[in-house]
Amino acid sequence: MLRFIALSGTTGVTENLYIYEQDGEMMIVDCGIGFPDLEMPGIDLVLPDYSYVVKNKNKLKGIVVSQGHEDHLGALPFLLRDVKTTIWAPPLVTEFIKDKFKDYGVRDFKINIFNPDSDQFQIGSFKIQPFRVTHSVPDTVGFAIDTSEGRVFHVPEHKMDQNPVDGKSFAIGRARELAKSGAIFLASDCLGANKPGFIESELPVEENMLNIVKNAKKSVFATAISSNIGRFQQMINVARKVGRKVIFVGRSIQKKTEMAYNLGYLKYSNDQIISFKEIGNYKPNQIMYIVAGCYGQVGSSIYRISQGDHDKVKVNEGDTFIFSADPAPPYSKESEDFVIDNLIDKGVDVHYYDLNEGLYVSGHGGQEDIKKLFEIVKPKYFIPIGGNIRFMHSYGKLVEDIGVDSSKVFKLKAGESIVFDRGNAVRGETVKTRDVLVHGLGIGDIGKVVLGDRAVLGNEGIVVVVIKIGKNGKYIGNPEIISRGFVFEGTDRNILENAKSDLSKILNSKRGLNVKSSREESIKFLEKHFFKVTGRSPMILPVIVKI
Amino acid sequence: MLRFIALSGTTGVTENLYIYEQDGEMMIVDCGIGFPDLEMPGIDLVLPDYSYVVKNKNKLKGIVVSQGHEDHLGALPFLLRDVKTTIWAPPLVTEFIKDKFKDYGVRDFKINIFNPDSDQFQIGSFKIQPFRVTHSVPDTVGFAIDTSEGRVFHVPEHKMDQNPVDGKSFAIGRARELAKSGAIFLASDCLGANKPGFIESELPVEENMLNIVKNAKKSVFATAISSNIGRFQQMINVARKVGRKVIFVGRSIQKKTEMAYNLGYLKYSNDQIISFKEIGNYKPNQIMYIVAGCYGQVGSSIYRISQGDHDKVKVNEGDTFIFSADPAPPYSKESEDFVIDNLIDKGVDVHYYDLNEGLYVSGHGGQEDIKKLFEIVKPKYFIPIGGNIRFMHSYGKLVEDIGVDSSKVFKLKAGESIVFDRGNAVRGETVKTRDVLVHGLGIGDIGKVVLGDRAVLGNEGIVVVVIKIGKNGKYIGNPEIISRGFVFEGTDRNILENAKSDLSKILNSKRGLNVKSSREESIKFLEKHFFKVTGRSPMILPVIVKI
Repeated sequence: MLRFIALSGTTGVTENLYIYEQDGEMMIVDCGIGFPDLEMPGIDLVLPDYSYVVKNKNKLKGIVVSQGHEDHLGALPFLLRDVKTTIWAPPLVTEFIKDKFKDYGVRDFKINIFNPDSDQFQIGSFKIQPFRVTHSVPDTVGFAIDTSEGRVFHVPEHKMDQNPVDGKSFAIGRARELAKSGAIFLASDCLGANKPGFIESELPVEENMLNIVKNAKKSVFATAISSNIGRFQQMINVARKVGRKVIFVGRSIQKKTEMAYNLGYLKYSNDQIISFKEIGNYKPNQIMYIVAGCYGQVGSSIYRISQGDHDKVKVNEGDTFIFSADPAPPYSKESEDFVIDNLIDKGVDVHYYDLNEGLYVSGHGGQEDIKKLFEIVKPKYFIPIGGNIRFMHSYGKLVEDIGVDSSKVFKLKAGESIVFDRGNAVRGETVKTRDVLVHGLGIGDIGKVVLGDRAVLGNEGIVVVVIKIGKNGKYIGNPEIISRGFVFEGTDRNILENAKSDLSKILNSKRGLNVKSSREESIKFLEKHFFKVTGRSPMILPVIVKI
Repeated sequence: MLRFIALSGTTGVTENLYIYEQDGEMMIVDCGIGFPDLEMPGIDLVLPDYSYVVKNKNKLKGIVVSQGHEDHLGALPFLLRDVKTTIWAPPLVTEFIKDKFKDYGVRDFKINIFNPDSDQFQIGSFKIQPFRVTHSVPDTVGFAIDTSEGRVFHVPEHKMDQNPVDGKSFAIGRARELAKSGAIFLASDCLGANKPGFIESELPVEENMLNIVKNAKKSVFATAISSNIGRFQQMINVARKVGRKVIFVGRSIQKKTEMAYNLGYLKYSNDQIISFKEIGNYKPNQIMYIVAGCYGQVGSSIYRISQGDHDKVKVNEGDTFIFSADPAPPYSKESEDFVIDNLIDKGVDVHYYDLNEGLYVSGHGGQEDIKKLFEIVKPKYFIPIGGNIRFMHSYGKLVEDIGVDSSKVFKLKAGESIVFDRGNAVRGETVKTRDVLVHGLGIGDIGKVVLGDRAVLGNEGIVVVVIKIGKNGKYIGNPEIISRGFVFEGTDRNILENAKSDLSKILNSKRGLNVKSSREESIKFLEKHFFKVTGRSPMILPVIVKI
């Protein structure tokens, strides 16, 4: 009997964490973070709820990681505080994980590096055979996993690119060979399930960039997500062809390109790259800046450059800026548009997603990439992963397109599971999960109450009312009222003053209230009063001071 | 001498308000609202800063409105509180304005209705000749305006659709005739300036909807933005063809379709439309619901239906839902996706933007629509309006494409102006403007201070610390600490308790501080303390109570 649990990573695109259980053993594929939505103000990131894993940590035999993106490995430093286990990952992914552990101060860990093209290894009773797939970061893999129920295929993210930048294409032959003996199920990427056709190849991006750069008269800036090593290779190739030096701007890109270079995944001659100190030795038309912050994230290098706030890099009229990044994470369109507008306003020639100049290709396969994988694996059952409900639904339709009955498709929400037993598949018990929010040092301490308060505070502000009660239970003097985020006290202090004297009258007319009732009366009166006067509903926080 | 001021409506897409000035007279085209962005928490809407108009109200001869969308007329009830003037508008737009005035309690107003196809009228010394254009709401017009400097053309939003639903196409002949005598400038819609080609016609949308509806087995739901009368006509046509009754759900759609019906802009036989009471008389496959809330706005009919919270309308497995609305306003993709996911999860067959089934067409022309207008008007100067900086920039490139020098294009930010004098155009003085934010009853009272406080409160929460000081200047007892939106006091009260005793020690060690210093010391200590303990930075609000 084999149980597959989508602990997370289905309904929310990110936060990938999948559990395999058999014979009292547990194995995990991927351990990524998610990103906060608008209902989660102040939250830095979201974790999969791995309390089930912690509870069963004695059964855990290891974690295998399929690729280098945050939503597949970013939760490892958190999980590893609570469980000790072994990680398996390809070479570049291993470097990314180690770097992350360094940032988080995780020192006690064990990673086994595997070769994506040839290795096979055991995690407990599970035999894992990785095979190379293509995605927007090198060393992305899918897995053939031998279980007590037979072989299953798990392909977290993929496209069928046969011409990737690094020349290492989807290992169709190996995958086909592995699938020969039959597959119980395929769990695979559904995010592109609404896109007709195959996703385009990465190759033409370089030519399209070259055409822009060779006509550039001044400095050239280019950006992509910091793990997109292939794209950086293309940028460096373009710079070399036109005789420009390259400088990496932003810590995330500097670190990731260095790791990739050291492993031989990024190739350049050393004199091609310059440091900040050397900028002065070159004319603007001899430099290409490769800059971090492709979505215009507040505080990123691009954000600061667009605001004229970067201490080392300035843009000038006539410069060229290439965004090789279509907006993707929540709200990234808004922030990316903001920096684009700012750069254009500074007279920069900006090339961005909306101009459709072929400067970006998604890492997620389209409908034909997905169906091609179906054809290679020919599984009995299908589990769409890595996409919201609407993408799972569309993936289900693709399964029907190839003539398979929709009952063979399992759309799992976070925590839901499937039990495979002697060739049959039925829904298993659901693991109860919740959103585990990280803010600052706090992990999972913020829930509905705090978020609810933040929503009110952030949208309406707060009014603190201080009421003094003497020993005899009488109110002393007028209440004090202080507000923040409600009205501008510089001009509208009178709104608070009026409320103060009215509240005072109310309280005195009800003399003899206890502390609790004083608090309730104040809230009741002030809520009504402020709504009438301002049309707003600030949080009312009464403080009763006993004297 | 003529001065054209883009008081707003250029850098932010919405909030359209343009001023024409000559010989001590002023005339306004459009008066719309804008929508708050993420940096404006709690804000209901944004107004153009019309203080310049109010200051010069004696010069104001009137306002002419080009179309029925909020971003062209929504600020009228606000402006009309401060100035008395006459409004000119086409028939349907007039109804929309009157309805808005009713909502806002504006009783003292004068609207002159003009026929978009034939009328001409004076606003002060300005002679206005409207001509029909096509957009996503009927009765949208452009204007030929005769000024002291000659004729100018103002086309706030348009596409060149020659097959609109109501059969009333862009009046190319009339526009061409009006432009015969030459045009000084064209101020026109740039929002589609990145879209190649002409925008598609509206006509095929009906056929595409029909193909979906005729195969629907149960209830059909359809939605579009509530002013999209043409789309509702198509939905009603489809319902009639397949023998379904129609019911309008949601106040905004009910009101707007009624106005359009009364003016003959929306055509149906009365027995085609049913009321909520009659729903029970029909089977699900005999009904089409036309529902408000196409962007999934919180609280809208669709939002409530998707949550199973609507008191009169339920969706069931097997129902069909057609979204004829691509996400457009800020953050509408997130909310629209949310309801789509919820509906799909309920087993509803949802047809939406990402499936590209030809169920929606933008109201804004593409590059060829824009260039066609250039060709018709042949202006000397060009002013892109109605789009962000990046769209103004792309519009400028289109001007260059037709062989006109870029010096003839004026990209105006809010408040910037152009002065036309004897055939020449130069930049004029800029009117100082700011964002006028509306929250509840307050108009323009919220600025940087309140928004800044809301950002901190919403993301980090607040800690209120109450410190009692006796007459002798000594601290009495321990401070009290209360928090909201910071940590969950149910489990993390100890964080506050520890801070309390530590703060007490600090204050007592510095005995003799005055009120101001006590406040400052508390803030300094608690900010540092909480950041160390939690990694968060709540607002610290000390309240000093003198006893």
